[in-house]
Amino acid sequence: MNFNRRDFLNRGLLGAGAVLIGSQIPVLTSCETPKREDKTQKVPLNLSFQEGTLDGDSFNEKFDKMEELGITGFEPWGSGLNARKKEMLEALKGRNIKISAICAGFKGFILSQEEAVFEEFMTTYKDLLRLAGELGSVGVIMVPAFNRQEPCRPHTIETREWLVETLSELGDFALKNNTSVILEPLNRNEAFYLRQVSDAASICRDVNNKGVTCMGDFWHMTFEETSDSGAFFSAGEYLSHVHVASRKRRSMPGEDDETDNYIDGFKALKQMNYQGFVSFECGSIGNRADTVPAAVKLLREQWEIES
Amino acid sequence: MNFNRRDFLNRGLLGAGAVLIGSQIPVLTSCETPKREDKTQKVPLNLSFQEGTLDGDSFNEKFDKMEELGITGFEPWGSGLNARKKEMLEALKGRNIKISAICAGFKGFILSQEEAVFEEFMTTYKDLLRLAGELGSVGVIMVPAFNRQEPCRPHTIETREWLVETLSELGDFALKNNTSVILEPLNRNEAFYLRQVSDAASICRDVNNKGVTCMGDFWHMTFEETSDSGAFFSAGEYLSHVHVASRKRRSMPGEDDETDNYIDGFKALKQMNYQGFVSFECGSIGNRADTVPAAVKLLREQWEIES
Repeated sequence: MNFNRRDFLNRGLLGAGAVLIGSQIPVLTSCETPKREDKTQKVPLNLSFQEGTLDGDSFNEKFDKMEELGITGFEPWGSGLNARKKEMLEALKGRNIKISAICAGFKGFILSQEEAVFEEFMTTYKDLLRLAGELGSVGVIMVPAFNRQEPCRPHTIETREWLVETLSELGDFALKNNTSVILEPLNRNEAFYLRQVSDAASICRDVNNKGVTCMGDFWHMTFEETSDSGAFFSAGEYLSHVHVASRKRRSMPGEDDETDNYIDGFKALKQMNYQGFVSFECGSIGNRADTVPAAVKLLREQWEIES
Repeated sequence: MNFNRRDFLNRGLLGAGAVLIGSQIPVLTSCETPKREDKTQKVPLNLSFQEGTLDGDSFNEKFDKMEELGITGFEPWGSGLNARKKEMLEALKGRNIKISAICAGFKGFILSQEEAVFEEFMTTYKDLLRLAGELGSVGVIMVPAFNRQEPCRPHTIETREWLVETLSELGDFALKNNTSVILEPLNRNEAFYLRQVSDAASICRDVNNKGVTCMGDFWHMTFEETSDSGAFFSAGEYLSHVHVASRKRRSMPGEDDETDNYIDGFKALKQMNYQGFVSFECGSIGNRADTVPAAVKLLREQWEIES
């Protein structure tokens, strides 16, 4: 692994009025006009469930219910997935359900200051990337550091550069396995280090590796973003996955009544021609037999609203 | 000043699947659909120059040239402004030119860990807010901490909360003076603490005080934002000012050729019905007598482009 830092920006040279030679600054592909699709083109809402979204004793039972609801994505927990893989793949046979993302399940964390914890992260995360590739999954969701995870590298430019370098290695590994790293911003109570979708996207841009992507979770976005559409437009081409939940209590969409408005975010996803999944990550206050179909209906209705 | 921290989010309670009572979480005005104006409505491009944008020996000479170019905003440096105020106001009489923002000029910095430096900041920044009010300016631009400013509070949630509290006091002071605090994100080489427009907007949202606003600078955005429109949509109602420069060398817009594309950002500003100024903050490689009118022409052309 190459620990050398990239001086991708020439620190100290960029002052007010400073004149730089163009070639000192990399050619940026950002800030270009995002692709906006013709509104007449229909962008599908691809919904995905996690393992716990529906009640049920087996994959087959859950997949049957998902098919009834027209759900075409499934997001398994990464933890212990290898052991459940055979049963899951067996149950998926002949169904129109794909593995969307794999939700975490690794050990350690990437920003750990302890070499052993970092190495444990690298080993177990790569195992999951390999598995994601086998399963045809878009990627493995990663939070760089939860607040509870200590000792963590400090929130400095050096840490940012180190993260970019490390993600570059993981991105290469992910690409070889036809999958991706998925950076997930959380709200500040869970993970202060990475809170905004635009910051995750900026990291992806700096890494500049197709194997490193990001996601947005409507639940966390409620607290950290001032604009759902702004956040998704910033994610742009780096967006590979989306999580959804009700916006007050992280329950089924609709259980928090009118607060559960996803229209502005959906509008951006449609304009971006987003082809990935919108995956449920939430609990339920009411009976799932009622709240899950109601949530699916609500999201589909909001997706259809012109804006 | 109230140094008590706001526990505006109930830290530790918001875990996956956690059920919270709705009233524990503040009503958020974010994530609502941003106001999109009817495209038939014409949003004006209000351009502004800084003191150094044009050559000239006096305010009158510069204002004459600005009027010839149809420039309706003027952004003075805050430093020593009180001494230049009389001459400036005299020269502005009878002209269609308003003071846009006041560009810094205070001493100390808000995130200083040294009480004396912090107090110097508060005193001199408030002096400028008072002056901004007198001059009818939208606000005083502030960078929370340049990289070179030490010792600085660490980039933690505690610092964020402390900043929000302190800005709340300044916002009240600004409001009493009919002006605002303007948070400016810079690129990481100048100020790692605050780099993205969405983060500045998120701070404004947390402060929840009309006297605290933010801005975007196309120059810094080139390096830190993945989407100009995404950044401005995130700024939304908190956006009070915009800076513009060429995108490779921070010169006059157009001097870096096709890199100087502002169309995506302008599109967002138009959709947001942005009524503030787009103010030049840049040097010039060529002769200003040529490059300034060319830049004005370029920006007006790009503003007119439908997207």
